[in-house]
Amino acid sequence: MASSDDDIQTLIATMARLPGLGPRSARRVVLHLIRRRTGQMAQLAGLMANVAEQARECIVCGNVTAGDICPICEDPARATGEICVVTDVADLWAMERGRAFRGRYHVLGGSLSALDEIGPDDLRIPALIDRIADENITEVILALSATVDGQTTAHYIAEALAPTYVSVTGLAQGVPIGGELDYLDDGTISAALRARRKF
Amino acid sequence: MASSDDDIQTLIATMARLPGLGPRSARRVVLHLIRRRTGQMAQLAGLMANVAEQARECIVCGNVTAGDICPICEDPARATGEICVVTDVADLWAMERGRAFRGRYHVLGGSLSALDEIGPDDLRIPALIDRIADENITEVILALSATVDGQTTAHYIAEALAPTYVSVTGLAQGVPIGGELDYLDDGTISAALRARRKF
Repeated sequence: MASSDDDIQTLIATMARLPGLGPRSARRVVLHLIRRRTGQMAQLAGLMANVAEQARECIVCGNVTAGDICPICEDPARATGEICVVTDVADLWAMERGRAFRGRYHVLGGSLSALDEIGPDDLRIPALIDRIADENITEVILALSATVDGQTTAHYIAEALAPTYVSVTGLAQGVPIGGELDYLDDGTISAALRARRKF
Repeated sequence: MASSDDDIQTLIATMARLPGLGPRSARRVVLHLIRRRTGQMAQLAGLMANVAEQARECIVCGNVTAGDICPICEDPARATGEICVVTDVADLWAMERGRAFRGRYHVLGGSLSALDEIGPDDLRIPALIDRIADENITEVILALSATVDGQTTAHYIAEALAPTYVSVTGLAQGVPIGGELDYLDDGTISAALRARRKF
């Protein structure tokens, strides 16, 4: 009994360590769940147990999946010649929400970083180079963050792929849809100006 | 396999419905957990299942507990003559963090609200009145929010307890510790002035 009163406190403490949550929001979430303990909370616990047990990395692209190969890599309707390289699974999901890309993905699992001592072999870059040969890829789209680490990683990959003669492209930079110039940083504005197009 | 790829999306959707979380933060949390699926995620799932199964309301005070009676109500070291009335369990936890009150609690489970059609019998007010008689209470401290609904509830309870001759008190209002006058609302400042004390 007491042990399980501790469970409530341990649950709060564990939730409080999740990204974006803190002690206050964790307490709020746990109370919300306890009020729905037979419904939402039991369901959430079950889902979490399932995912914790079954989730793994797709052996091809590194996406999160329940099997060995993720649904995207298995989908015959997806173009096989194009690989979109993303930093992590969150970026893959973001690309999928955009619904613009119909090829396959490759998740690096991070960015090159001298500071954090993350080198090419700590990421899934060798696996990417293998895929270029194995899957006769024609285009690699580098959908990496426009940050220093992201662009360092992009340049490294572009150089590593140079010998393969595959065409390496990157996402366009410019004014975001619905973006007001007044609120844009100077870097974005000058990038958008440099990449200006005819109307 | 596909079913369990859906589990990941269902987990995200369920997390996104939690208070203070949205789709973006839910995705972030789930990815964070999947990276720690054998450790933190499995532990969290287990804790949640335990709490979902065992958590209930203390039959005396309405606190969240694993048994029939919560540790506070069972603690012989806590003063029996004083009851601190709080709106919900979050407020009880807040009072406990303050470590100032050593009596027992009574959780109302909400505030009176004409708008939301919440009347005295929807809250644990009758149970409170019973406790006054049963536990020969000498003081009832109303630790209710300084909102319209909170104060309405406080006045209703004070009137309901008038016949019992128990002394009914409320939390002092004034400048919060570390509060800068410049940032305080006028209501608080005038309340603090009205309740001014000798140095």
